Amino acid sequence: MQFSALSPQELRQLYEQAKKTHEADKALGLKLDMSRGKPGSEQLSLSMELLTIPQTAADCRENGVDLRNYGGMDGIASCKTLFAELLGVPADQVFVGGNASLSLMYDTIAKAYTHGLLNSDKPWSKLDEVRFLCPAPGYDRHFGISESFGMTLIPIPMTAEGPDMDAVETAIKDPAVKGMWCVPKYSNPEGVVYSEAVVNRIAAMRPAAKDFLLMWDNAYCVHEFDGPFVPFPDILSLCERHGNADMPFEYASTSKITFPGAGVAVFACSKANMAYMKKLINFQTISYDKINQLRHARFLKNKENTLTLMQKHAAILKPRFEAVLQALDERVAPLGIASWNRPRGGYFVSLDTMPFCARRTWELCRDAGVVMTGAGATFPYGKDPEDKNLRIAPTLPPVNELNQAVAVFINSLKLATLEKLLGK
Amino acid sequence: MQFSALSPQELRQLYEQAKKTHEADKALGLKLDMSRGKPGSEQLSLSMELLTIPQTAADCRENGVDLRNYGGMDGIASCKTLFAELLGVPADQVFVGGNASLSLMYDTIAKAYTHGLLNSDKPWSKLDEVRFLCPAPGYDRHFGISESFGMTLIPIPMTAEGPDMDAVETAIKDPAVKGMWCVPKYSNPEGVVYSEAVVNRIAAMRPAAKDFLLMWDNAYCVHEFDGPFVPFPDILSLCERHGNADMPFEYASTSKITFPGAGVAVFACSKANMAYMKKLINFQTISYDKINQLRHARFLKNKENTLTLMQKHAAILKPRFEAVLQALDERVAPLGIASWNRPRGGYFVSLDTMPFCARRTWELCRDAGVVMTGAGATFPYGKDPEDKNLRIAPTLPPVNELNQAVAVFINSLKLATLEKLLGK
Repeated sequence: MQFSALSPQELRQLYEQAKKTHEADKALGLKLDMSRGKPGSEQLSLSMELLTIPQTAADCRENGVDLRNYGGMDGIASCKTLFAELLGVPADQVFVGGNASLSLMYDTIAKAYTHGLLNSDKPWSKLDEVRFLCPAPGYDRHFGISESFGMTLIPIPMTAEGPDMDAVETAIKDPAVKGMWCVPKYSNPEGVVYSEAVVNRIAAMRPAAKDFLLMWDNAYCVHEFDGPFVPFPDILSLCERHGNADMPFEYASTSKITFPGAGVAVFACSKANMAYMKKLINFQTISYDKINQLRHARFLKNKENTLTLMQKHAAILKPRFEAVLQALDERVAPLGIASWNRPRGGYFVSLDTMPFCARRTWELCRDAGVVMTGAGATFPYGKDPEDKNLRIAPTLPPVNELNQAVAVFINSLKLATLEKLLGK
Repeated sequence: MQFSALSPQELRQLYEQAKKTHEADKALGLKLDMSRGKPGSEQLSLSMELLTIPQTAADCRENGVDLRNYGGMDGIASCKTLFAELLGVPADQVFVGGNASLSLMYDTIAKAYTHGLLNSDKPWSKLDEVRFLCPAPGYDRHFGISESFGMTLIPIPMTAEGPDMDAVETAIKDPAVKGMWCVPKYSNPEGVVYSEAVVNRIAAMRPAAKDFLLMWDNAYCVHEFDGPFVPFPDILSLCERHGNADMPFEYASTSKITFPGAGVAVFACSKANMAYMKKLINFQTISYDKINQLRHARFLKNKENTLTLMQKHAAILKPRFEAVLQALDERVAPLGIASWNRPRGGYFVSLDTMPFCARRTWELCRDAGVVMTGAGATFPYGKDPEDKNLRIAPTLPPVNELNQAVAVFINSLKLATLEKLLGK
């Protein structure tokens, strides 16, 4: 039943079938969304208690400070302590910001451009070219930030252990290469957990740029959906041990722990970076929303309690991922037309079609009412060199809709592949 | 009793008295803060209801959208409508951000540097020099942002009607002059409400820089503490009428309406600016905290209800301002050693000492345990050319502490003046 073993006539038959199914799918007028890593409403219901913390003036005090008022730029102590425990870093190396780690990442890059980083000779805006390493497939919004600032994006192949470190170590000899994007645990979209060897090589890098910026987006630091919490090395102390203390900025948030639209985000960095950044941020704000920080510190309490909450998320997420993987195993694997990962955490299934079939699969899905992340989006400049990677985000739709969406996706994938094989 | 009418011997006597009082004040070991425009705890208690809105999943929906989840970058509809009414602008020209208008202002300037504004030929970071007009005395944090980006700050004298427009109109002939800071209603620190004539001249400016940025910080748009709401012209439509639609960015927040540490901030601008900014911000965040936007929209409801709340703030604030003004009237006016404003809104009393007495007054206050905003802080680079302006912020301390702090301030002012007159 492998497509490669079929005769042209058999392929044409399958094509006609798939086309008929596609027309029938279109007629259903579906509106299904598998495009973004959004928690579903069942997950959101896990954190409703958050909304009624705090209630009284006394509730709003911490260490004698009224959190309703101005002040406390770098975040409240209890929230720093919480994230310090989650990330395994010292609390005084944590800065608690607003609701979005993406904003904090954007802001670090923006400050590199407007003011320069701690070890920069001058602001990056004064340089002719800034190059940035983009392990790909990767997170489209990371690449988007880099593009928005006019950086040159350098793709780095992803392996099953993380970025191809041979490629990285060669690339960083170029002093115009100023940094690298990483999602080290359950990478977006492939769900790769960087191996200890890769993390160590990253921490030990010797970039030519002395202000090399390691963007360590630990978005899925406690986001196992299959199995218990997986401990992960602390990049800050590892880099410090290798003489690279000021290289990493680590990011995390509660977007996929409590509410994506109303969470708390942090960055963590060396003490020297923290002092430098605080000096700069002091011009930018008096404080972020400390009451929301308090809500999160009191609701999540500590790592143990947070991990218990994450297991409740897992109980909701695991069946969704299993539904996708089971459908792919049963209905695509026998055809030999695609490969995919089997993540144990994170928010995505990454699938590779046969070369030059991804964009067409995406179009066919769209025409049948199923929104997927744009083909190519997981690559720098949105350009997947072989047009084969697609990112499936199975978390948002209810299970019955998800099954429908996956059925549409699978038929679209078959149809696109058959079109390619038949030269249509 | 005017100091100018006293003999050297009489002055020396007063000096000895003031010095004795100063030593006695110091011995009290006070710790009083009149440095920042912070609401007092009585004011914060007015908005406690905010903390328990919303509570259920149904509460979290608006227009069929679950506000707990990702999305809605430019803010929720009800919150836009609220601010549109408060500022007198169309709702689709309002962008609702995080908790701090200062951050939004910083961000506009940062984008001018990294990407350029809508009508910029190139990002400001590529220019040799950026000059910015700073009506002074003004808000230290505005000037701080400009300084942080390395702008050249051009002081513009303040008059009782707003910035000296002759000076402004001359200055803007220079194409390196890229913008101006304004707090148009109850200016910080003088409490000046810009006159209609001044607002009209501002809207009708013909700056040489085609990307001239009018930073219109309407921080005190509904912040009357003495008397009813004072209507104020809408700068967006005025500028549009004069062919300057893209010149102004207006800012406001609930920091001094609900909670300074947990409010909601907005910017408003032309439709073209909004489209441009949304395109850029789309790389920066998926959304700001929509649940907190919802809290504010449901709690504040509309302009009428917001003005009712502001009258409750007024009832708390007015006695504090009266206490300061009465003390100054009774105990400083007869000496002829200072002048001050009589604001009807905003958060400050601005006081001018005799030339070159402000910094010393500040020092004496500090030594006696009363923290004031640094002398000079209300001028670009912190340099008050005549060292005479001091900003009194009477809102935070409870009334009994305020009276104590004002007594210390008045004695410090007298002592500093006497030192100057006696050449000490």
